[in-house]
Amino acid sequence: MTAGTDQNDNKTAGRITISVDAMGGDAGPAVVVAGIAKSAEKNPDIGFILHGPKEQLEPLVAKKRRLEGRVEIRDARDVVTMEDKPSQVMRNGKGTSMWSALESVKKGEAAGAVSCGNTGALMALSMLRLRKLPGVNRPAIAVLWPSLNPQGFNVMLDVGADIRADAEDLLQYAVMGMSYVRNSMDISRPRVGLLNVGTEEHKGRAELKEAYGLIAAQADQANFEFVGFVEGGDIPGDIADVIVTDGFTGNVAIKTGEGTASLISTALRQAFAYSLLSKLAALLAYTSLGRLKKRIDPRRVNGGVFLGLNGTVVKSHGGADATGISAAVKLAFHLAEQGFAEKLAARVASARLLTQDNETGSKEPAITEKD
Amino acid sequence: MTAGTDQNDNKTAGRITISVDAMGGDAGPAVVVAGIAKSAEKNPDIGFILHGPKEQLEPLVAKKRRLEGRVEIRDARDVVTMEDKPSQVMRNGKGTSMWSALESVKKGEAAGAVSCGNTGALMALSMLRLRKLPGVNRPAIAVLWPSLNPQGFNVMLDVGADIRADAEDLLQYAVMGMSYVRNSMDISRPRVGLLNVGTEEHKGRAELKEAYGLIAAQADQANFEFVGFVEGGDIPGDIADVIVTDGFTGNVAIKTGEGTASLISTALRQAFAYSLLSKLAALLAYTSLGRLKKRIDPRRVNGGVFLGLNGTVVKSHGGADATGISAAVKLAFHLAEQGFAEKLAARVASARLLTQDNETGSKEPAITEKD
Repeated sequence: MTAGTDQNDNKTAGRITISVDAMGGDAGPAVVVAGIAKSAEKNPDIGFILHGPKEQLEPLVAKKRRLEGRVEIRDARDVVTMEDKPSQVMRNGKGTSMWSALESVKKGEAAGAVSCGNTGALMALSMLRLRKLPGVNRPAIAVLWPSLNPQGFNVMLDVGADIRADAEDLLQYAVMGMSYVRNSMDISRPRVGLLNVGTEEHKGRAELKEAYGLIAAQADQANFEFVGFVEGGDIPGDIADVIVTDGFTGNVAIKTGEGTASLISTALRQAFAYSLLSKLAALLAYTSLGRLKKRIDPRRVNGGVFLGLNGTVVKSHGGADATGISAAVKLAFHLAEQGFAEKLAARVASARLLTQDNETGSKEPAITEKD
Repeated sequence: MTAGTDQNDNKTAGRITISVDAMGGDAGPAVVVAGIAKSAEKNPDIGFILHGPKEQLEPLVAKKRRLEGRVEIRDARDVVTMEDKPSQVMRNGKGTSMWSALESVKKGEAAGAVSCGNTGALMALSMLRLRKLPGVNRPAIAVLWPSLNPQGFNVMLDVGADIRADAEDLLQYAVMGMSYVRNSMDISRPRVGLLNVGTEEHKGRAELKEAYGLIAAQADQANFEFVGFVEGGDIPGDIADVIVTDGFTGNVAIKTGEGTASLISTALRQAFAYSLLSKLAALLAYTSLGRLKKRIDPRRVNGGVFLGLNGTVVKSHGGADATGISAAVKLAFHLAEQGFAEKLAARVASARLLTQDNETGSKEPAITEKD
């Protein structure tokens, strides 16, 4: 059970309440309000608590008819900027909209928090206010990644919550990532891969070999398939639903992938701008290119989820537009609907039990129900 | 000076001789022979020593008129397969075409070697036969990477020669990578970036912070610009010409980039195959898409260069076709023409001297001429 979260509190009249930090994104609160208005329009079951300077937020909310009666504004005077260091924010962040947004989750007023702000500060404050799940050493950030899988996406974690990860951390990432996939996509037996530089068992760093054994030992009882080591090329591939790695490697990989996609899109634009004929071709190809763009549009999968905390926190991209913010809100809503925070906590506890069992050689059954 | 290499030996009649391992690629020796025939046609100044089973190679070479009088075949009975472990090959590899190809460089008969074979085995044999440059702890594999830079490419290293790298290794990678850029592209003052998860100086692993200081201290005297920490998104970007990282991270990054490019190309094909109209658009867009494909075609930049050895070794992609092999040969030829092996050795020696000077506080000038 999530500490302090009472399902009745955050589901007034069948509604699920999401706590949203209006500040700290690159484009300011107007875009955040536009984003939640988009969400509100699509989904009548979401309510909002919006955090930031009241005099800025009130007129923005008043302008959106769709938000009438669905937003409670919490006045917070300070803003965490992209330049603020996590350690400073932990000491002096009490008056910020970010702190306030997390407080609503802690108190059980909201089923999840969404922020476009500074990632490091958001993780630090989340750990401070929501606390780590029992037995979790390093929480992780999980992202959806466009892939050749039938569901169109993989989940990769950690992508930068912590630059280190030992074998036990990687095991927890595997368990948390597979629980996230099970609750966000319709996959009952997720395939988990451990990122390495080769697929042979003898390759790679020592902690990876150790993690290999730990993850393999949990696969059956936790009902996932361990596909073993995978390589960078498998991140957008179709052999795994969950890609497990340390935060340093994951962060480099995600940014390399984004950079490559952006390079290709620039090159594509230039190729079509080359001559009159190619411009004409571009005109005719407009729909096809739109279809491609939609498929790999990062705004559709906006939202890194913090895993390993008492409560759900979704980090939206700092440069997200209204569509992106709406996607992040939808993700937080969907996870709340699934009761993900509680299922994840149970899953982590069960994995911990199993590890202890394996260590002591005991054969007591661990929790095995579908989470 | 490169051990055992005599420029007169491998430049018969103005020709530069490249040693080519005909075996070990996915497609067999016919493709390798087709590749060197392509090179021979484009460049009258290349001669070849070709290694592999004589009875297989002779008829293949005889069929290519362009190769007449330009190929010497060295009979080698054994082949290193993709499954062979480097340690086995080091013990038992003496009769292989790969060993034989390196032997020609060692003896000074060829100015560089090209192989499509098993990367780990090729690096292990290269270290065994050519030996590391004095002061180099870990040789590196450097690849060209499509980027937004004016020259169209960056150099990234290490991409998998070794999964570890300490601060001094990273400094050597910086020096070797910038020397490679200077000799393979027309850039007199290369910009060097150190891959990290953030661009702030306080972020990242301890060895990265230490490497930051070491590289910064060499920049002026070795005549490169140190742009500091860079992120994954800068690998295909335009703020650095050389991206320095450890072999684990580099290997994941390169494969993630390749995987992303392949995902987008699949999605692009599917987008254009969607309807009759989109197929028509594809027809008209044919030239533009061809232009794009050419720009990001991996075959154009085929060839990982092993840096830090006494001699030039180019690793071609295992699945390379004739165009790819021809590109790898061209790269080996171009580096030989520049006298790269000798310049690199001098540059590494100079960097070593400078580090020692910095340690002892001496202010003796190190080698500073343009390498």
